[in-house]
Amino acid sequence: MNKNILSAKFLGCDSDFKSSDIVIFGAPYDGTTTFRPGTRFAPSIMRMDSIGIEAYSPYFDADITDYSIHDYGDLDLPFGSPTRALEMISETSQHIFDSCKMPLMIGGEHLVSLPVIEQAAKKYPNLHILHFDAHTDLREDYLGEPLSHSSVIRRAWDILGDNRIWQYGIRSGTREEFYWSKEGHTNMCLHNFDTLNNAINTIGTLPVYLTIDLDVLDPSIFPGTGTPEAGGVSFLDLVNALKAVSKLNIIGADIVELSPHYDQSGSSTAVACKILRELILTMKNS
Amino acid sequence: MNKNILSAKFLGCDSDFKSSDIVIFGAPYDGTTTFRPGTRFAPSIMRMDSIGIEAYSPYFDADITDYSIHDYGDLDLPFGSPTRALEMISETSQHIFDSCKMPLMIGGEHLVSLPVIEQAAKKYPNLHILHFDAHTDLREDYLGEPLSHSSVIRRAWDILGDNRIWQYGIRSGTREEFYWSKEGHTNMCLHNFDTLNNAINTIGTLPVYLTIDLDVLDPSIFPGTGTPEAGGVSFLDLVNALKAVSKLNIIGADIVELSPHYDQSGSSTAVACKILRELILTMKNS
Amino acid sequence: MNKNILSAKFLGCDSDFKSSDIVIFGAPYDGTTTFRPGTRFAPSIMRMDSIGIEAYSPYFDADITDYSIHDYGDLDLPFGSPTRALEMISETSQHIFDSCKMPLMIGGEHLVSLPVIEQAAKKYPNLHILHFDAHTDLREDYLGEPLSHSSVIRRAWDILGDNRIWQYGIRSGTREEFYWSKEGHTNMCLHNFDTLNNAINTIGTLPVYLTIDLDVLDPSIFPGTGTPEAGGVSFLDLVNALKAVSKLNIIGADIVELSPHYDQSGSSTAVACKILRELILTMKNS
Amino acid sequence: MNKNILSAKFLGCDSDFKSSDIVIFGAPYDGTTTFRPGTRFAPSIMRMDSIGIEAYSPYFDADITDYSIHDYGDLDLPFGSPTRALEMISETSQHIFDSCKMPLMIGGEHLVSLPVIEQAAKKYPNLHILHFDAHTDLREDYLGEPLSHSSVIRRAWDILGDNRIWQYGIRSGTREEFYWSKEGHTNMCLHNFDTLNNAINTIGTLPVYLTIDLDVLDPSIFPGTGTPEAGGVSFLDLVNALKAVSKLNIIGADIVELSPHYDQSGSSTAVACKILRELILTMKNS
Amino acid sequence: MNKNILSAKFLGCDSDFKSSDIVIFGAPYDGTTTFRPGTRFAPSIMRMDSIGIEAYSPYFDADITDYSIHDYGDLDLPFGSPTRALEMISETSQHIFDSCKMPLMIGGEHLVSLPVIEQAAKKYPNLHILHFDAHTDLREDYLGEPLSHSSVIRRAWDILGDNRIWQYGIRSGTREEFYWSKEGHTNMCLHNFDTLNNAINTIGTLPVYLTIDLDVLDPSIFPGTGTPEAGGVSFLDLVNALKAVSKLNIIGADIVELSPHYDQSGSSTAVACKILRELILTMKNS
Amino acid sequence: MNKNILSAKFLGCDSDFKSSDIVIFGAPYDGTTTFRPGTRFAPSIMRMDSIGIEAYSPYFDADITDYSIHDYGDLDLPFGSPTRALEMISETSQHIFDSCKMPLMIGGEHLVSLPVIEQAAKKYPNLHILHFDAHTDLREDYLGEPLSHSSVIRRAWDILGDNRIWQYGIRSGTREEFYWSKEGHTNMCLHNFDTLNNAINTIGTLPVYLTIDLDVLDPSIFPGTGTPEAGGVSFLDLVNALKAVSKLNIIGADIVELSPHYDQSGSSTAVACKILRELILTMKNS
Repeated sequence: MNKNILSAKFLGCDSDFKSSDIVIFGAPYDGTTTFRPGTRFAPSIMRMDSIGIEAYSPYFDADITDYSIHDYGDLDLPFGSPTRALEMISETSQHIFDSCKMPLMIGGEHLVSLPVIEQAAKKYPNLHILHFDAHTDLREDYLGEPLSHSSVIRRAWDILGDNRIWQYGIRSGTREEFYWSKEGHTNMCLHNFDTLNNAINTIGTLPVYLTIDLDVLDPSIFPGTGTPEAGGVSFLDLVNALKAVSKLNIIGADIVELSPHYDQSGSSTAVACKILRELILTMKNS
Repeated sequence: MNKNILSAKFLGCDSDFKSSDIVIFGAPYDGTTTFRPGTRFAPSIMRMDSIGIEAYSPYFDADITDYSIHDYGDLDLPFGSPTRALEMISETSQHIFDSCKMPLMIGGEHLVSLPVIEQAAKKYPNLHILHFDAHTDLREDYLGEPLSHSSVIRRAWDILGDNRIWQYGIRSGTREEFYWSKEGHTNMCLHNFDTLNNAINTIGTLPVYLTIDLDVLDPSIFPGTGTPEAGGVSFLDLVNALKAVSKLNIIGADIVELSPHYDQSGSSTAVACKILRELILTMKNS
Repeated sequence: MNKNILSAKFLGCDSDFKSSDIVIFGAPYDGTTTFRPGTRFAPSIMRMDSIGIEAYSPYFDADITDYSIHDYGDLDLPFGSPTRALEMISETSQHIFDSCKMPLMIGGEHLVSLPVIEQAAKKYPNLHILHFDAHTDLREDYLGEPLSHSSVIRRAWDILGDNRIWQYGIRSGTREEFYWSKEGHTNMCLHNFDTLNNAINTIGTLPVYLTIDLDVLDPSIFPGTGTPEAGGVSFLDLVNALKAVSKLNIIGADIVELSPHYDQSGSSTAVACKILRELILTMKNS
Repeated sequence: MNKNILSAKFLGCDSDFKSSDIVIFGAPYDGTTTFRPGTRFAPSIMRMDSIGIEAYSPYFDADITDYSIHDYGDLDLPFGSPTRALEMISETSQHIFDSCKMPLMIGGEHLVSLPVIEQAAKKYPNLHILHFDAHTDLREDYLGEPLSHSSVIRRAWDILGDNRIWQYGIRSGTREEFYWSKEGHTNMCLHNFDTLNNAINTIGTLPVYLTIDLDVLDPSIFPGTGTPEAGGVSFLDLVNALKAVSKLNIIGADIVELSPHYDQSGSSTAVACKILRELILTMKNS
Repeated sequence: MNKNILSAKFLGCDSDFKSSDIVIFGAPYDGTTTFRPGTRFAPSIMRMDSIGIEAYSPYFDADITDYSIHDYGDLDLPFGSPTRALEMISETSQHIFDSCKMPLMIGGEHLVSLPVIEQAAKKYPNLHILHFDAHTDLREDYLGEPLSHSSVIRRAWDILGDNRIWQYGIRSGTREEFYWSKEGHTNMCLHNFDTLNNAINTIGTLPVYLTIDLDVLDPSIFPGTGTPEAGGVSFLDLVNALKAVSKLNIIGADIVELSPHYDQSGSSTAVACKILRELILTMKNS
Repeated sequence: MNKNILSAKFLGCDSDFKSSDIVIFGAPYDGTTTFRPGTRFAPSIMRMDSIGIEAYSPYFDADITDYSIHDYGDLDLPFGSPTRALEMISETSQHIFDSCKMPLMIGGEHLVSLPVIEQAAKKYPNLHILHFDAHTDLREDYLGEPLSHSSVIRRAWDILGDNRIWQYGIRSGTREEFYWSKEGHTNMCLHNFDTLNNAINTIGTLPVYLTIDLDVLDPSIFPGTGTPEAGGVSFLDLVNALKAVSKLNIIGADIVELSPHYDQSGSSTAVACKILRELILTMKNS
């Protein structure tokens, strides 16, 4: 028979688990999203639309098909029980770390980053976090609930403590969150990546987990997200930031908060796919 | 100043709590929805678009502005914790029942009906349930979770037992659910309302809670829902069923599973508003 | 050069004014629409999408290309001044009647029918009106304004008086409108065309103006309208009604209230195009 | 690691080729579509959304997971070369027939049925065709091109000749097509399935290929298609027709012309998935 | 009962009229819009979606909940009669000025600014106008109609005369409009805010009315408007302009021409909400 | 009768063929588009929406109505046969060149540029090509097919050879394409127009054909295209590039790859209309 194209792998990521350094998996969970849900659809839509982009990046002058990357697929996460969903993500990322591979997770809402960060911190006690986002995500809780997409970095701070979290592109949050950060708990760069070199120089060769909330991008180029925040960075800003941090020792990463149905043009999904491609190359070059 | 139109009440439902027989409230929760979320937006969009329909029903030859109805607004329900959300709905409906009024809840996903049914059963021990839906909703659990939109009627059966639940319009479910019903646990009428008189005659003057999953309607007239199921009833079928059951002693009701963003034409929302109008008249005439 | 397809004529209606019996023109006005505007786009979108339907009707076993029909294009109507817009429509329809041709107008909101009816009544003093609609359109005024889409038939009654207006498919209005009609001012058939033969037999060979508000159709088949009203007639119901009234002496007609952008599937526009095709054949056979 | 859900199989169709009687494959080609393209997206979207329906059919009281069905995936068809695309479909269907299995193809535009019919006719010289469609598809050519979605049944007639093709639900075409059929070349039932028993009785035990253009359904329930034609059959009409023809000896089938992006509600895709489920059960019961 | 969230106030603007300095009201009128209507929906959609933004602005380091702001709701304006609609807006703004408060109006189309400017000029004879817009809005009339969204600033000039109107971001109009401005009638800065300091220095402490047509923003960040004009300013450009003019003595302001349905992503509405937040802080700091 | 507005001409381009220097025609073909089709709708939607822009350009301080431009309409191109479609475009452009006029074609996919380039090269043997695009379009073939939207510039190179093609804004392609260009076959400027003066200085007074794939624009301002590529140029970048190249001797041009349905806001279409206006002024000033 003719060659078929039945495939649910992200573009070119068709190596097996064993031979791969990077393991992609989807965490299609948006159960604590308060305003507009839909990030649960991101991993499957990204895989389907990834055929619309090229495997070659002119930014890195590199091609993801040169590398061995495994796409594990999506976890089957239960809605209505964030605790169980986070446990399942935790187990998966632990297995990937235990196998000496790097997890590259596609969310889902930002809360899904928490269990991966927990596992990363277990394996790498001197872990630093690079956090690209429009939102502070530093709430102590949301309506009394400590596990929320808007408190995920605060929970990471519970694990890591002061001086370990670097936040870039931030432009939305409560006054309390901004002031709490200023007290020295996190390093926050408002609006853009202007002080990214501070992080790079300080972190040096220490292990870094990179969590990218795609709403760090300006809604002009990325309207497909639940809470678009104008005043963000451009696509090239983000690609340049990735190139800059490719010098660091990245041990895992994620890309979250694409809500594909909010951008019927498909452009936001295409952007997410290209950022994932660049992120893979960032990890391979780090 | 000129008269303003700042109002978040459903069309014509602007009486105060005390003087009203029927109390409308919204339960904008879709936290256990597995496939396509969005019913959280139903109550607010229905209120906003209710100005597009008339208060007068040619079907009942009656006008909802002839009655005193209170619109309490929406409960502020926490996503990520179905248990707490259900508790809040439970407290609200208990208060309404305790005040000798009839709750009329706008969902949200179907799970929100459960706490209202629990409170209704507490107040009316010989309660019967009329269930209009495309889906059986009789699963023992969903992925191990007993509290789910797809098990809500099974949970109601846990409370009420056999011969108290009458299901109409059903056309989707697992084989197990259909067979379990046939064992005598519920009275199920597939596809339509053909045997509705059986329920009416059997129930007589006993108290009835009416729960309407709007996906009982055919997706041709109601595509704005998470899991559209072709082969459903028409709008006039549903209005006629309401007129028929207006003879019964209805003590509370709900209307769930409108997901307004899935129907950009606004037609599904307009249908939901008209069904709510007819449902009010059904309750006032019952 | 190759044959081009630069054409803004409705499918097959490319005869010149002089040789045509029927003159199509668009009245892209929705200036009094209260709820959801957009019918202004109907004539141009219908022309563009008319290439998607066939010129042959299996219902009439006839082809519109067998006849000479002129498409005059759209009037350039000023928004912000309903009086001037109606004057321009009035002049255009007078010219068509004076030329002994039949106007076939594409709305726009329903108010645009009024000046054509006025001109028709001037030329044919014993005019009857057939009105297919979901709405009564019998308000004395709307917010104090006598010229409104929701009072157009009442304004027609001002001209024609009792026993001259036959309304079909009606299912929405205020109580006052329904009761006013029942006092004998208009002949109203609720929900459907069940008593259409009454009109046909009574009118006999007298001149008839046929005004079709497309929202007479059920929103399942015609969601692309500003105020969708469930419980309407099917496409075949409407085609059969047209076949029935083709025995009458129709001297002009219109088709109003398509709001194409509310139905992104294009299906409502396709329905409107087919109804226009059938309407042309109805007029040619009457 | 936790169980993943990386799967591109249609719901429950995960048997291997060898052990399966039915082989599903996608032909995502719409290269000759004149008006509105997009059926190329149907197979992949149907697979993704098939998780939203149940495997159990209350119409057949049967479950597709009881059977062994293989989903081969999509052919990688070249746009810009219909001839090569048809060759690839031809080779694939020949291989399936040669393996004594039944092809069940998901289109794509209707032209993709032609090579499967050719292979079916080669294997079963006394083949009959059941054709459910809104359109005649009997044009000699389209703009001079004999291979077109609007001439596919005419091309099938070139192979099979008179009295072998049974058309149901037809309501759109040129006058020439309707008259050509009436000359005795095909058996055509306008608008519905009223005379389906004629086909069933005549065909008896002879081999039948069933080709379903989903636009046979009314656009109210199936707006997601390039050329919606009002006046079609309902979902239950089509299911009942399938149950009726399940007595026949069906040796292959297809389902074409879903254009999922034209129905943003997802309802048309859900309908297509359910029809595919019923079609599988029809073939297993035939 | 549990706390409800029935509210139609813009985020945090829930003070009563008496205790407030700023009074927000909606003018949902788009009756003279020629091309694509829909700005009538802006005020209600902005209120509903305002829960998606934060009350704290990192640009002003200030929180709108620190201030007393009243949201009066929407005026119930008649379509079909621009004169009457403008009268109602005039009365409302007069009342606000008479109460020594600042009006902050949400349009609607740009014409709604005219009556507020008239009342402002009555109260503050030496009024200046800051006009942020893509369009000149300087037509003498539109199709003979002097009251039009495209002539609103020309009408303001009729009241104020030369040297009182400062236009920024302009990039679309007829040649006549641009040349008329250059004759010295208005101060116009093409494309951006480069010469904003000229206005600030010239105006000094004189009273200023600020009218923001949101289409001054580039359509990349603000596609949700009737007449998108590429080449506009960024969100940060506009925020910086607001910070700059916060030194002026602003006595009233408006924000017009959001047409929310044209941007299904909701991003344009979110931008409008944030600009309204910044505008409030601009007025409080001026 | 009143003046009508039945017109299918692009804004202000209503001169006859004979008296015009520039001849606009549409090539609504997307038959080789692999990923997401829809550019076939661009010419007709652009004409319809062109009434939403002004004829006057503040960038050129010029008005297109000052010039004589003919809009020929769209070619009626057969889908399913790229060869025949290209022939028809070839004949049309030959006729325009033979009449000593400049063709200005609206695509369609990029492949439609090939026959115009062929005719241009026949008439102007020392032709240079300016190519603005996100994509290299330099593939030797696509799935074995030499005629493809992704190989159109490679085919132009087959005709013109080295040093005649100048590519700007490029940011997507295979590694092979980028490296092949670097071997000296084309002059490629990545991402932007930074080296545009190189082309201008080198080409001097030689004849230039300008082909603009609108996806050279960033998807933030132009999401309405089949393959959006982030990291592109802004609207003002493109307008400035046009002003720069207006010094050259442009003998023909095209604008391709608008897929209007992918941007429901209409903003991409408005951008395309304005670029076409600026392109006309560029050609008139060259």
